[in-house]
Amino acid sequence: MILDIRQKQTFNLKPIYQRVAVSFNYEVCFTHNLFELKNPTLAQVITADGERKPKKVLAIVDAGLLTFCPDLIKQLTAYSKFYAEVLTLPIEPIIVPGGEAAKNDPNLVEQIHQQIETVGLCRHSYILAIGGGAVLDLVGYAAATAHRGIRLIRVPTTVLAQNDSGVGVKNGINAYGKKNFLGTFAPPYAVINDFSFLTTLSDRDWRSGIAEALKVALIKDASFFDFIHSHSAALVRRDMDVMQQVIYRCAQLHLEHIANSGDAFEMGSSRPLDFGHWAAHKLEHLTNYSLRHGEAVAIGIALDSTYSYLLGLLDGSEWRQILHTLSVLGFTLYLPELADFQKVFEGLSEFQEHLGGELTLTLLEGVGKGVEVHEVDLSLYGEAILLLGSE
Amino acid sequence: MILDIRQKQTFNLKPIYQRVAVSFNYEVCFTHNLFELKNPTLAQVITADGERKPKKVLAIVDAGLLTFCPDLIKQLTAYSKFYAEVLTLPIEPIIVPGGEAAKNDPNLVEQIHQQIETVGLCRHSYILAIGGGAVLDLVGYAAATAHRGIRLIRVPTTVLAQNDSGVGVKNGINAYGKKNFLGTFAPPYAVINDFSFLTTLSDRDWRSGIAEALKVALIKDASFFDFIHSHSAALVRRDMDVMQQVIYRCAQLHLEHIANSGDAFEMGSSRPLDFGHWAAHKLEHLTNYSLRHGEAVAIGIALDSTYSYLLGLLDGSEWRQILHTLSVLGFTLYLPELADFQKVFEGLSEFQEHLGGELTLTLLEGVGKGVEVHEVDLSLYGEAILLLGSE
Repeated sequence: MILDIRQKQTFNLKPIYQRVAVSFNYEVCFTHNLFELKNPTLAQVITADGERKPKKVLAIVDAGLLTFCPDLIKQLTAYSKFYAEVLTLPIEPIIVPGGEAAKNDPNLVEQIHQQIETVGLCRHSYILAIGGGAVLDLVGYAAATAHRGIRLIRVPTTVLAQNDSGVGVKNGINAYGKKNFLGTFAPPYAVINDFSFLTTLSDRDWRSGIAEALKVALIKDASFFDFIHSHSAALVRRDMDVMQQVIYRCAQLHLEHIANSGDAFEMGSSRPLDFGHWAAHKLEHLTNYSLRHGEAVAIGIALDSTYSYLLGLLDGSEWRQILHTLSVLGFTLYLPELADFQKVFEGLSEFQEHLGGELTLTLLEGVGKGVEVHEVDLSLYGEAILLLGSE
Repeated sequence: MILDIRQKQTFNLKPIYQRVAVSFNYEVCFTHNLFELKNPTLAQVITADGERKPKKVLAIVDAGLLTFCPDLIKQLTAYSKFYAEVLTLPIEPIIVPGGEAAKNDPNLVEQIHQQIETVGLCRHSYILAIGGGAVLDLVGYAAATAHRGIRLIRVPTTVLAQNDSGVGVKNGINAYGKKNFLGTFAPPYAVINDFSFLTTLSDRDWRSGIAEALKVALIKDASFFDFIHSHSAALVRRDMDVMQQVIYRCAQLHLEHIANSGDAFEMGSSRPLDFGHWAAHKLEHLTNYSLRHGEAVAIGIALDSTYSYLLGLLDGSEWRQILHTLSVLGFTLYLPELADFQKVFEGLSEFQEHLGGELTLTLLEGVGKGVEVHEVDLSLYGEAILLLGSE
């Protein structure tokens, strides 16, 4: 349509309403011993792109892992040689600190960008991130912002990363003392959950990730909660079969939520998967990240369940069962930091600021039934803290 | 589904295929005198979110604009007071350098992030970016990476930004000497094209933006090319009505392409809107950005049209008409930098690296008919350069 030049009301040009639909597809695989030569999973994931090979793969590895897998770098190199027709490592894998330290050092993002530039990765190359959730978040942010997004294959190595953060669509680093202040929404190219890495975890890290499984069970799936509840002893004695099922179902519930929420990139204010997380984020900060994320989430779940109970939303027997399950799993449900109500409650406004828009908290109106509220009664929350402390 | 715990082949847990569909919607408005109190466009765009008001708006202004609109900051403040129920400016507008300098200083992104943090913007707050394409690219990148994306309202003030970069889904800054090395795909919340700003442009900047209109006409719409061709004298004498129609149609063609290409976030290698851009990017770099982007695109169009002609794809009379139109509009079609073939042709591999995957160039098989090729004949390209130089 070319407007008639003689028509003079050209300042009334009609607005154009633009709709951009984007579809992201990725596979979440489950395996053991990913880098054994006879395991073709990684090579298959790259072959599936249908493009000319071999592809450049920049590997970035969590330093924490190398203590337990000292041969990992050697294995990776051998793997890349064995599958040389599919992939090539242009440089030695980059090693970055594990845990929250990965997200607190802004230089790391820059170093990864520098390496991406040096080895000449393009948008069809791959970055292979191997590590815990914090390392995946850091690498994901660096990958998403170079060339407007280089393909990211995540290999989560902790329970928490395999069943929650590692399968989702977010990345981020901390800045200005705020968790995930910098980050983007960027679905991965693929996720490969290798259960063998779970044997490297300390009891603390093994346990920590179960908190996110409990969280998603509590808001979405009562039978999954029953499964965790009835297998908590097996989880404590590190039964791998049970853990694999917990991870699989938890990842599945997270993925279903992301796919079906209608708001995968969180443009609204509703965020049910953040149940228990407002206090968790604040407690992580107040303890200088000496708490694991999952440990903080366990306390957040306990607190928000207790508040749900005091509000009359949640039945007393269900509330007790939630606290009992958390305790049997070995989680601590109270910290001295909770006693400073004012500081803790700052977490509510920080949570609102990070999510954006109206304050939206998920509470429980039953096991498996999350419910959203937009107002909080701070004095009742204070009672919930006291009640939790006296349990 | 909870797997049976007795089943032992748990390492055969099936892959989960995840599909995340995300829909972005935004309005591209056209107006005059945006910040006059009687113009409600901006307030309406913010009111349309249906959320509790007033909303925080962080304004970021292109310094280049203030020379010509010295009252802009005062106007903005008055506007925010007049529409105080809808929006509030938490701090004075931030002023950033205009032109490519905006994209070459990494500190600017950090400064904007710092201000976002200081004034406590959330994901439902607004960043109002007013300026040329480079400033919009910079601010867009900072907005997209804070809290995983703060709503961005773009007010493009140049022809180029109003008809091309400002209406699209990209942002970015330069790094390691590479154009747009850092950036993301992030559709804006809204775009408001205020034609009044075009009166502030130098003849060079007025002309420069027409190159992108010619580009999209050449690959998609022969009648639009005819319109530009037959109105080139009017464009040279700065006829605002004609320019408005050129901008409107060009923006419309860009938006249609983005919406209907099936690859808005450029995960494949096809990039028809980058016709003429491989050489343009390289020439901008080789001239230390003394060339405007549009001026470089004009040379890129001339070169790739000439190569299309030499390849036998494009008819000689059409080729001459393209060069003639560019010349009448006032574009220079040859630069001494082109004589160093080797350096110029480095632009091809850099272009491939930035786009990712297979080399994909758009050429012309007729006016209004782009065609993609995956191979180039460098000696023929050299002839094209010589032919262009002799014209």
